Amino acid sequence: MDETPGAVGTTASLSLRLGQALFSSASLLFMSVGVEFYSYTAFCFLVTIMGLVIPWSATLAIIDLYSIIAGCPLRLPGVMVIVVVGDWVLSILSLAAACSTASVVDLLVHFDGSYCPAKFCGRYQLSAAMAFLSWFLTAASSLFNLWLVASW
Amino acid sequence: MDETPGAVGTTASLSLRLGQALFSSASLLFMSVGVEFYSYTAFCFLVTIMGLVIPWSATLAIIDLYSIIAGCPLRLPGVMVIVVVGDWVLSILSLAAACSTASVVDLLVHFDGSYCPAKFCGRYQLSAAMAFLSWFLTAASSLFNLWLVASW
Repeated sequence: MDETPGAVGTTASLSLRLGQALFSSASLLFMSVGVEFYSYTAFCFLVTIMGLVIPWSATLAIIDLYSIIAGCPLRLPGVMVIVVVGDWVLSILSLAAACSTASVVDLLVHFDGSYCPAKFCGRYQLSAAMAFLSWFLTAASSLFNLWLVASW
Repeated sequence: MDETPGAVGTTASLSLRLGQALFSSASLLFMSVGVEFYSYTAFCFLVTIMGLVIPWSATLAIIDLYSIIAGCPLRLPGVMVIVVVGDWVLSILSLAAACSTASVVDLLVHFDGSYCPAKFCGRYQLSAAMAFLSWFLTAASSLFNLWLVASW
């Protein structure tokens, strides 16, 4: 459809958005279902950021789907700048949340174990891994869209 | 000198590089002088990354200085791609190190205090703050250079 793969309105972009929504939902679920995450600042931060990434990615996935079906990508300059800045901020925040969670889990595992039962720690680690995957896809979307905006 | 501020070979770029080298050196010193950083994975990671950022920024500062004095910015496409990718990777890694350090320090402070005497925790927090500043400047350099490459 276009010379820039992964920019808004392409199937690659739709795949990236769906992957982001999927991984951030998985991260949120692993962290929040049956686990007392609210006793650690880093885990609350992760939950907050994943709660922001999910609606953002879902909205942009709908826009991509509409663009693909309608055949005309929505690429007004103002909209693209908002998308790039939003992706950028969310990718930085989700990397920060993923790293914080991973390092706190690592610290808890290496303490005497009383802070972190094996079942909970496994979930925390899975949640951090999902957050890293979500960050990776968000950063990819952000780069593709930034490239499109910069090459205008 | 050029329409893209902050790209390789401008005074803005030289300032950014000097700031990166300064803040990452400060972060490394606060973490490593007289403090037992090697008992925590996140702190070792921070020291490693800051040890990579310092020579990278210093080298590029010298290149910028040479370009400013000689009056001809060194902007071969191959070199620019290496600079952009290197900045990119280092900015991601320094953000990850800064977040990990900050969250581990936060966790140590909120435990009972026996893990982290007040003098050490203050140094760790300063080190994390310096790493965040270094990340911010690296990300700015990376964005400016990416913009230059994308707009060719």
